[in-house]
Amino acid sequence: MEVVRRNYPELPAPGAPHYQSVRVGNLLFLSGATARDTEAEHGDMAAQTDVILKRIQHIVQAEGGSLENVVKITSYVTEIDRDAGAATHQVRVKYFGENLPASTRVQVAGLVEPHLKIEIEAIVVLPE
Amino acid sequence: MEVVRRNYPELPAPGAPHYQSVRVGNLLFLSGATARDTEAEHGDMAAQTDVILKRIQHIVQAEGGSLENVVKITSYVTEIDRDAGAATHQVRVKYFGENLPASTRVQVAGLVEPHLKIEIEAIVVLPE
Amino acid sequence: MEVVRRNYPELPAPGAPHYQSVRVGNLLFLSGATARDTEAEHGDMAAQTDVILKRIQHIVQAEGGSLENVVKITSYVTEIDRDAGAATHQVRVKYFGENLPASTRVQVAGLVEPHLKIEIEAIVVLPE
Repeated sequence: MEVVRRNYPELPAPGAPHYQSVRVGNLLFLSGATARDTEAEHGDMAAQTDVILKRIQHIVQAEGGSLENVVKITSYVTEIDRDAGAATHQVRVKYFGENLPASTRVQVAGLVEPHLKIEIEAIVVLPE
Repeated sequence: MEVVRRNYPELPAPGAPHYQSVRVGNLLFLSGATARDTEAEHGDMAAQTDVILKRIQHIVQAEGGSLENVVKITSYVTEIDRDAGAATHQVRVKYFGENLPASTRVQVAGLVEPHLKIEIEAIVVLPE
Repeated sequence: MEVVRRNYPELPAPGAPHYQSVRVGNLLFLSGATARDTEAEHGDMAAQTDVILKRIQHIVQAEGGSLENVVKITSYVTEIDRDAGAATHQVRVKYFGENLPASTRVQVAGLVEPHLKIEIEAIVVLPE
């Protein structure tokens, strides 16, 4: 099966050697995304989550799917207190509605820039 | 392919907007699970690992599989010293026997509650 | 579908109860690998990355594929400054060339030994 590797010109370019998505058949893997190079870069965790989920939505739609097809997300956060969690959870529901994915959220020691508060990656199973 | 999203009434309810498992075809993704809201919540890492693996077993069996079908686990731990590792590894062998999955274990800066010591997520390929 | 679990005698034995790879159909999951028990164990992050990617290449080739079939990697690093990043990225390009995978890189609080600086896991879709 062909491996389809893609970057999306509408999104900030990757800051490291990788593709923003790699697809084989209907399996689509999205690289971890942050708010880097967006207007929310220095915002709070909810604002950063919003631009990241919009970006994931952009990629999934460009591949012929929708957020319903996201089966798993992993969120790496730099703060895991209850307030930051609640704010990002509201954003998650805004995007996914009832079609929520499986999810893991852990606090890491750092992300690629000190002002980044959350990085999210996703696994997607596209419609056939 | 239909996306099947499930929570399991026999398990503690998710503390965040996600499903405990999401399945498409025979691919099953399990959200990161901790010992939160169980009797092992304040126990040591081995005790917490035991309730988490029992929970993963519950989900996989509810989906028509067994622990043999777990192909990958990721363990996020708050301590990575040799003793904690050895104790949790014994628990892992108790559940998986010789049918061990691929695995990654890393030390994170924090989990969703300060007394939680380990969170485990899993990828499962169910029998067809 | 049969679950094929493998360790590779040419590689350092796993330090924990897991298999170095688990395959179902053409989906192959590789456990997180470090430079433990290699000549690069006490080297810098670029040197450690080199032996890890060589090891991932060894496994993928033993399974009938090549690094082109690696669709996603996750790198857990203990330092995330720009210099360490740039050095490891050069190593990544050395191995993958233009056939780069999707990728996530986060800074963790620790790996299984204090001198280890990077652990990489991979998801592979083998040719059919």
